[in-house]
Amino acid sequence: MPILPGFSSSVERWLLRQVFNTIGQPPIRVVLPDGVAISSTRAAPQATVLISDYRTLLGLLLDPETGFGDAYAEGRIQVQGNLLALLDAVYRSWPSTPGPTRYSRIASNWMAWWQANSPRGSRKNVHYHYDLSTDFYKLWLDRELVYTCAYFPSPTATLEQAQWSKMDYVCRKLQLQPGETVVEAGCGWGALALHMARHYGVSVKAFNLSHEQILFARRRAREEGLDHQVEFIEDDYRNISGRFDAFVSVGMLEHVGTHNYSNLGRVIHRCLGNSGRGFLHFIGRTRTGRLSRWIRKRIFPGGHAPTLREAIALLEPWNYALLDVENLRLHYAKTLEHWLDRFEKASGQIAAIHDERFLRTWRLYLAGSLTAFQTGTLQLYQVLFAGPECGRIQWTRAPLYAGEQPETQERKWIHAMS
Amino acid sequence: MPILPGFSSSVERWLLRQVFNTIGQPPIRVVLPDGVAISSTRAAPQATVLISDYRTLLGLLLDPETGFGDAYAEGRIQVQGNLLALLDAVYRSWPSTPGPTRYSRIASNWMAWWQANSPRGSRKNVHYHYDLSTDFYKLWLDRELVYTCAYFPSPTATLEQAQWSKMDYVCRKLQLQPGETVVEAGCGWGALALHMARHYGVSVKAFNLSHEQILFARRRAREEGLDHQVEFIEDDYRNISGRFDAFVSVGMLEHVGTHNYSNLGRVIHRCLGNSGRGFLHFIGRTRTGRLSRWIRKRIFPGGHAPTLREAIALLEPWNYALLDVENLRLHYAKTLEHWLDRFEKASGQIAAIHDERFLRTWRLYLAGSLTAFQTGTLQLYQVLFAGPECGRIQWTRAPLYAGEQPETQERKWIHAMS
Repeated sequence: MPILPGFSSSVERWLLRQVFNTIGQPPIRVVLPDGVAISSTRAAPQATVLISDYRTLLGLLLDPETGFGDAYAEGRIQVQGNLLALLDAVYRSWPSTPGPTRYSRIASNWMAWWQANSPRGSRKNVHYHYDLSTDFYKLWLDRELVYTCAYFPSPTATLEQAQWSKMDYVCRKLQLQPGETVVEAGCGWGALALHMARHYGVSVKAFNLSHEQILFARRRAREEGLDHQVEFIEDDYRNISGRFDAFVSVGMLEHVGTHNYSNLGRVIHRCLGNSGRGFLHFIGRTRTGRLSRWIRKRIFPGGHAPTLREAIALLEPWNYALLDVENLRLHYAKTLEHWLDRFEKASGQIAAIHDERFLRTWRLYLAGSLTAFQTGTLQLYQVLFAGPECGRIQWTRAPLYAGEQPETQERKWIHAMS
Repeated sequence: MPILPGFSSSVERWLLRQVFNTIGQPPIRVVLPDGVAISSTRAAPQATVLISDYRTLLGLLLDPETGFGDAYAEGRIQVQGNLLALLDAVYRSWPSTPGPTRYSRIASNWMAWWQANSPRGSRKNVHYHYDLSTDFYKLWLDRELVYTCAYFPSPTATLEQAQWSKMDYVCRKLQLQPGETVVEAGCGWGALALHMARHYGVSVKAFNLSHEQILFARRRAREEGLDHQVEFIEDDYRNISGRFDAFVSVGMLEHVGTHNYSNLGRVIHRCLGNSGRGFLHFIGRTRTGRLSRWIRKRIFPGGHAPTLREAIALLEPWNYALLDVENLRLHYAKTLEHWLDRFEKASGQIAAIHDERFLRTWRLYLAGSLTAFQTGTLQLYQVLFAGPECGRIQWTRAPLYAGEQPETQERKWIHAMS
């Protein structure tokens, strides 16, 4: 008996075929509860998707990303087999999809407008994600709560080592010197600002809109006796003032929105003038496009991953020179492997604090991000730049890697943590 | 007595003031033969420019770059003091100039159209510069005739070492493996293609429009017994066909012209498909703009130095990921120091083969380029990219620098050269 009242199983099959074509015919199997199924004829299915009802099937047809995300979160879609294998198969077949449906395009534009990062909008957007309780993030981030791509000197480094290495790598790229002043836009729980102060002897002003994170960071600074060196300020990057030797922003550009890039460029120039140097670390992509509507609806309202070209446009009016661009997408995939692993281990606690839907939403977000970086759907760019009169340009990059053997890093890390 | 017939010295002074403002009031002194002079009130003059006549003064007013270049070449302008110091002062004050005159803007656009890099135009443009006799270039390039920015592991490396290091650096960035196939677009006298074949065991097809250079490269390949591994082809990059593991182009993009970038992108994709990797090395700038009209008139017809943003646009339609961008402008300044030094030592011979005007034209071109890279007016970008299905992405850059101490490089170089 067909599950869709009034539909014959051949209509169901036709609808399923439409959904399957919309997602590029990946090597997976999709099954309706009455057994009507479809799978790719080209390769063995990597996993099976069970669709529970009519509404879910139509939702997938209208807007596959949002349809899948919400149905997965609510349990209307179940995955048999490995979720990562499923996502990998889907992401890899994405380039051969016919592109977004008209409905999804309109809905996407409307969402971008609705979630725009005005000063007020940014506060709301940041609050939505980052003001979830710190205790939640403690369950699956590293012990310093660094919520951005880590840098693994070797793939076997631990997450703690890799986050430490990332923070140190940023400082070395910027060639921070004792006594210099640094401004950080978007400082999370403050780990990088504290690292810079502790290990490089600089003074830092660090900005963030998240109240929870700023309170946490201030407490850490006090506890470590670094509060005379690091000032954590609960404010928008647009309100940064003062002159600094270096500007650094790790994982904030994704929340700025392209409409505000020229604004951010102006803020950077106000901070650095013609002689400073700066660093942007952000999630990007190879081609202009929007983040999935599901991600913007449930995870990162107002989020956008720019191409490198979109991002560096903000430096051009100020005649800033790009010194170094590095793509660390495989490191972000590795970082997300660690996060997802810890997240799964804490899933009982997470479901207890929040609920099953929240758990499944965040599992899908982490697994989807992992897959996106693994497959190249998303990239991670680190961009080092300098003003036209900057006198501190490294002759070669060799010193950045002097002694960067996993063992050396290990020793440095153990020393730093002890 | 005023030098300009019919003009009083106060009119001359006024004209001189206009020229001085047009070039941003640099710390130099400009003198007319009757002693009317002007200099900056802000800093001690770095050098003195002697203007011989009325025509030269008006030429400077109309279009400072071309006016200066041609007058310097013809001896109507003489420089007292150091030419490099003079150029440095002028380039540094450039940002405060009022911008190009209307005449110079129109002339510049017209020149761009006239010199456009159509298949036929490219052949003419390349011939103009690169088919000057190889003997001329032998007088001041390194012994392998590498006519692009070198890479100096340490600033004290010799030019020979630095060009060897650059070629090796390119191969290491591309992670070339024995048996792979490489296509090179714009191969000069063939040094890089031969290096790749000799030290990395790859097969290379190398394209170039310069007849002189191709003949030279083929002879070298035969002499070294590498002609079964390296094929030098006298043809346009637009005619490249075949599939390759890697695409490399060092110093050609400057001759492609922005109108042809999408064309070049298509050629690259035809060569690499979705799985290959590629490398572009080119002279760029921080802000969109044209090369000086004098450079395009006398040195590089059809030449253009793009911003990084303009250049990487050609990779976007193919979904190629940027893996690594490095800015080596200080290395180009150092390379040009070596070239200029050798050029001056050979100036007697050069003037004998060509003439005084040619000598002064090329001296100004080399000195001006040195200054442009020194001051950041020009940048040198190395861009590594890969197709969306490329499986060869380095985990970190550390292996690129393993053992990159000047001494190690020295040993490798001596070994390679012996």
